[in-house]
Amino acid sequence: MKFNKEILKLYMITDSNYMDERESVLKAVKSGATCVQYRAKNTDTKQMIEVAKDLKKICNHHNVPLIINDRLDIALAIQADGIHIGQDDMPIEIVKKYASNMIIGVSASNIEQALIAEKKGADYIGAGAVFSTQTKKDANYMGIESLKELMKKIKIPVAAIGGINLKNIKEVLKTNIDGVCIISALLCSKDIEKTTKEFLKIIEEEHI
Amino acid sequence: MKFNKEILKLYMITDSNYMDERESVLKAVKSGATCVQYRAKNTDTKQMIEVAKDLKKICNHHNVPLIINDRLDIALAIQADGIHIGQDDMPIEIVKKYASNMIIGVSASNIEQALIAEKKGADYIGAGAVFSTQTKKDANYMGIESLKELMKKIKIPVAAIGGINLKNIKEVLKTNIDGVCIISALLCSKDIEKTTKEFLKIIEEEHI
Ligand code: NI
Repeated sequence: MKFNKEILKLYMITDSNYMDERESVLKAVKSGATCVQYRAKNTDTKQMIEVAKDLKKICNHHNVPLIINDRLDIALAIQADGIHIGQDDMPIEIVKKYASNMIIGVSASNIEQALIAEKKGADYIGAGAVFSTQTKKDANYMGIESLKELMKKIKIPVAAIGGINLKNIKEVLKTNIDGVCIISALLCSKDIEKTTKEFLKIIEEEHI
Repeated sequence: MKFNKEILKLYMITDSNYMDERESVLKAVKSGATCVQYRAKNTDTKQMIEVAKDLKKICNHHNVPLIINDRLDIALAIQADGIHIGQDDMPIEIVKKYASNMIIGVSASNIEQALIAEKKGADYIGAGAVFSTQTKKDANYMGIESLKELMKKIKIPVAAIGGINLKNIKEVLKTNIDGVCIISALLCSKDIEKTTKEFLKIIEEEHI
């Protein structure tokens, strides 16, 4: 799939610790989420492929790209729309070699990491954690000021990630960001569909 | 690498819970291990690639193939000699599509699984667990009699796995097996080099 920065607007990331992936993804994409990332740890490869296949059907039916976190093998197996790698994942050079047709996103927790990813040909940056977060307990958060600095230096599209919720999203959107990645604020909400729409409404109002 | 059933003779599998992979693999291949499988769970992809690269250097220097357990992405990233998949891993059809040049092994705990793997084009079967084992706590063991039955029905080469040690290996070799996979009996031994040689001596004496 050709990358278009519009997909970063409301980027949902799965976490089966909070909620079954199929259920949460269906609700989010029906309600306007613009991209989905399947992230799973300590799960058998066979099961990951089965879940990823189902998510791909759901996403593609709603014209939403499905990005696979970390695992090039899973991305290849289901011919995902993209792959997202962290700093502890596979080097981008290898991902590009085997998945040259896929969208490639890279996590960066500082400007240096983002500049390297940009230079190496990432399609977009996932920058964060913006705020302290429960999802990745070990993440050092960068804060709004560092995110503003990063946005001045990075030319490729950037989605902010980490602790973003309905209360603090406006502050994040003011940094000139291309989109926000949401995990727990969606997955822990009592009504994912309603919350997705609320996020989208704020994003549209702020014209990102 | 072209598959040759001779490599199954003394097939070592890594386990960092017992011992650092680089150290144990170097000792084993120096002493005559005929194949190495890198198996790691709950390890970052980047770290797995780094370890696997080092193991490949060590193995290939001693003309021993390096097989990667489960992870097609790691196998592709380091251009391993082969990939070994279990019943909960990626389907063999997908592995063959992306790693057509690699040796492909499949774990089977019964004849049905082995027959399917053979039909789908596996190069060899890892059959077991032969005995009850500490390494895979949930594995149901098949026993020597079932292994004998399996050997009668399967045409492709078979390596026995699971709880094989210096005391019970002769019994296993009598089943007409092509090789044995050893984990803890090597990794827990006080002298891996000496133990490797002891295993090899018995294997040569039994003419497998
Ligand atoms: Ni040497």
